Amino acid sequence: MAIAAIIGAGMMGSAMCWPLVDNGHEVRLVGTPLDRNIISTLQKEGYHPTLQRVVPKGVHPYQVEQLGEALDGADCVISGVSSFGVDWFARLVGPKLTADQPVLAVTKGLDDQPNGDLLVLPEATRRKLPSQLQDQVKLNAIGGPCIAHELAARRQTGVVFAGEAPDTLRWLRAQLSTPYYHISLSTDVIGVEICAAMKNAYALGVGLAVGMMEAAGPDGLARMYNPQAALFGQSTLEMHKLLSVLGGSLENAYWLPGPGDLYVTVFGGRTVRLGKMLGQGVPFAEARKRMAGVTLESVEIITRVARALPWLETRGYLQMVDFPLLLHLNEIINQGKSAEIPWDRFRMDVL
Amino acid sequence: MAIAAIIGAGMMGSAMCWPLVDNGHEVRLVGTPLDRNIISTLQKEGYHPTLQRVVPKGVHPYQVEQLGEALDGADCVISGVSSFGVDWFARLVGPKLTADQPVLAVTKGLDDQPNGDLLVLPEATRRKLPSQLQDQVKLNAIGGPCIAHELAARRQTGVVFAGEAPDTLRWLRAQLSTPYYHISLSTDVIGVEICAAMKNAYALGVGLAVGMMEAAGPDGLARMYNPQAALFGQSTLEMHKLLSVLGGSLENAYWLPGPGDLYVTVFGGRTVRLGKMLGQGVPFAEARKRMAGVTLESVEIITRVARALPWLETRGYLQMVDFPLLLHLNEIINQGKSAEIPWDRFRMDVL
Repeated sequence: MAIAAIIGAGMMGSAMCWPLVDNGHEVRLVGTPLDRNIISTLQKEGYHPTLQRVVPKGVHPYQVEQLGEALDGADCVISGVSSFGVDWFARLVGPKLTADQPVLAVTKGLDDQPNGDLLVLPEATRRKLPSQLQDQVKLNAIGGPCIAHELAARRQTGVVFAGEAPDTLRWLRAQLSTPYYHISLSTDVIGVEICAAMKNAYALGVGLAVGMMEAAGPDGLARMYNPQAALFGQSTLEMHKLLSVLGGSLENAYWLPGPGDLYVTVFGGRTVRLGKMLGQGVPFAEARKRMAGVTLESVEIITRVARALPWLETRGYLQMVDFPLLLHLNEIINQGKSAEIPWDRFRMDVL
Repeated sequence: MAIAAIIGAGMMGSAMCWPLVDNGHEVRLVGTPLDRNIISTLQKEGYHPTLQRVVPKGVHPYQVEQLGEALDGADCVISGVSSFGVDWFARLVGPKLTADQPVLAVTKGLDDQPNGDLLVLPEATRRKLPSQLQDQVKLNAIGGPCIAHELAARRQTGVVFAGEAPDTLRWLRAQLSTPYYHISLSTDVIGVEICAAMKNAYALGVGLAVGMMEAAGPDGLARMYNPQAALFGQSTLEMHKLLSVLGGSLENAYWLPGPGDLYVTVFGGRTVRLGKMLGQGVPFAEARKRMAGVTLESVEIITRVARALPWLETRGYLQMVDFPLLLHLNEIINQGKSAEIPWDRFRMDVL
């Protein structure tokens, strides 16, 4: 039996309680300052208000002030913050970590640098840690398709744990494997994380077609999966291109982290809800207003990667014409354009 | 303006009428012996009873007896037969083809040979043509996600035309491109066709999880997309492996022919209808009975490829352990087993 501290009591972080408790571990679930109500409800009723589910026995909720207490003696730390919480995690949690506490992050995102470099979040996090810890703490991440509600319902789920140290990965798998939580391993942190981040961008792209279908209305027996599927195929193509540019291992483009995670995200809620509105012709500013208060990682990742692409092109790493869908999503989000899929730019001749 | 003869008045062959007519071509739609009622209804009312749609002006329906007349002067021939009709096409239509009539087939499938070789259908068709035509007729095929109902509704669709001769491919694209039918080209017939065939097999796999979800019933907010997505990611992984074994070009595993076509097929009807029943625990024999009369290319392709795998393993081309999902589908269909996803066998460590 081990002790796991989960930092961040959002949906995904909290869902990790289930495989941990089912393996007999003690789980300390620590809220960020944003999770105050979640933690106090958990403390009073054992009920998680956003997951809308009673958490299993063996989960101990902590407010952020008790962070030190929660980390004390923990065998591993699970980071459940969103990409917007990485700075907070590095600043507040970082200095309290010890070298023998591996970190496993559910966070998805890419951090763009002024020169166009795109950092995966474990690397971005590492750079923000106290210098004496940077090379010692083992930062790992989870990729692959996993909706939090479903993990908490113990639905069959296949994920990839990515990190630099195989032994640490194997140890983490041993702690978390259950008959419903199936864990593959990869030392390709860059590849797994690029897919984990980009699937949010591209799910928005597939969502455009869902919105267009709804705007077009029914036409006899014809639904509108051809356009969704064309966007899906274009998405995996662009993800593969980005993997090859940024040095990620290519199997992710045809495995759980790429198409697997994109598939689940298309069904997953907020990203596609936004994509549908945009596909129906709602301008982004208005759609953003209608989703006030909702964390939209898709918008963040599209903006960051689209901002990096010209720099990477100038430096000779890629050609922007290879990312027509991503660039169109950026036009919609950051340049006030309405959704008009650039189908002709998707044409690829393998001759 | 050109003259196109479509052979086979099923859903997909008939849907090709729309881009052809929209480009001003004369279309001769020839029924197979199975299409007699479709053609006579078209002749009487201009209505296609299975597509449930009035065909556009410029489509001329022909019964099979008028095949010679329909082919006479045709600039290209579109084969709309299913994989079960390839023999018929080669035997009856083959001898009437001329060398300057390129063939474009919507047919999907793989033909297994006694030694384990898997032939893509253009090649299987070629071998059945009269010998003097075998090297002359240009056989092309269509891959990528396209539901017939949607093409006939002029929904945005992205496909790949595959064939050996770039000039022929370009000519075909010029005849068929429309503002809604977007055509990429590939000389990798093997790769495009492997995906076109295998997506039927793997859509059945994803369908198992849909059935399991329905059997499990609702659980609060938790639907059951994690298992579907895990099967989706496993499917594209196995497709990639098969492409690399059989010499197909690998981009198909992360482009329209692989994940794109798999995505649309999951929403596409009969294959997933069967998968759902199997996932719900209905034995295959019973499920097959409930779908009497329905062409099930998924069952055929699973059976053929699973039959070929041991031979290919013996010959050193592959390892059967790399295809756990396909082999489980074969167990369900051909060995009377019930659906029980071999999650542990999907585990892959990239270390």
